[in-house]
Amino acid sequence: MPTDATVFITPDALLAHWQGHRRLTRRVIDAFPDEKLFTFSVGGMRPFGALAMEMITMAVPMLQGAVSGEWNTSSSRDARPKQEVLRLWDESTGQLDALWGKIPPQRFRESLTAFGQYPGILHDLILYVIDNEIHHRGQGYVYLRALGIEPPAFYDRS
Amino acid sequence: MPTDATVFITPDALLAHWQGHRRLTRRVIDAFPDEKLFTFSVGGMRPFGALAMEMITMAVPMLQGAVSGEWNTSSSRDARPKQEVLRLWDESTGQLDALWGKIPPQRFRESLTAFGQYPGILHDLILYVIDNEIHHRGQGYVYLRALGIEPPAFYDRS
Repeated sequence: MPTDATVFITPDALLAHWQGHRRLTRRVIDAFPDEKLFTFSVGGMRPFGALAMEMITMAVPMLQGAVSGEWNTSSSRDARPKQEVLRLWDESTGQLDALWGKIPPQRFRESLTAFGQYPGILHDLILYVIDNEIHHRGQGYVYLRALGIEPPAFYDRS
Repeated sequence: MPTDATVFITPDALLAHWQGHRRLTRRVIDAFPDEKLFTFSVGGMRPFGALAMEMITMAVPMLQGAVSGEWNTSSSRDARPKQEVLRLWDESTGQLDALWGKIPPQRFRESLTAFGQYPGILHDLILYVIDNEIHHRGQGYVYLRALGIEPPAFYDRS
């Protein structure tokens, strides 16, 4: 049984941390003009709308897989209006909260193979999804600056 | 006393996760031509060398403060040759490993005020330092692509 020495962060605090990041990412999506979301990029990289759709198709499916062992890889990442991206984003937010409580606590430190091809310990796989969001959002900050738009403050997670 | 239900990730696993990110960030620093590291940027943002120096002046000082209550804000973020940035980076890597074991485990969930001005729970403050590194590194990926340079693979933390 773990002792105090084994806790860096609890599942509840990690979910709160993630949802804070997701509130910021939502503001970054919303900061893009609709007509630039799936068209504008820098250096030949993917537009921010494609990155946001990648985030959406990773987050809930990762937790669904952790809960059920079923991995959904069928979600579309196609271009769509910003309001539809935001609607899917908000839908995911509620689903993440609901799924989190269904993950048996000991599972966070168990090994599994996400999406049938990514082996790892569940806490590392979940951190990968969060880190991927932060990484691509940082890319989105550059796109916004290149468009002459001030991005939302990085430290504000409210 | 915490039970199994309270552990998302242990301190040891979180440090390993961070050091994996740091190996990737080191490769991103090294991917920049020396003459671009403190001069090139996109959208009027800071060059990647300045961002790397910010990371260096956050990481070890955060852990030193967590261990001792003394907060070092005096480190220079001035431009310097890439080899000197990498030398400071490698020095920090060893210092982080050494300092980590000196943090009393229960402190990760205690509140403190980092650098005399950022209040928070230590686990959130440490995650902020890591997230800031990922965020700015994502920015660095765009700079590299804009320079016509292929960035290192995001998923490779070896």
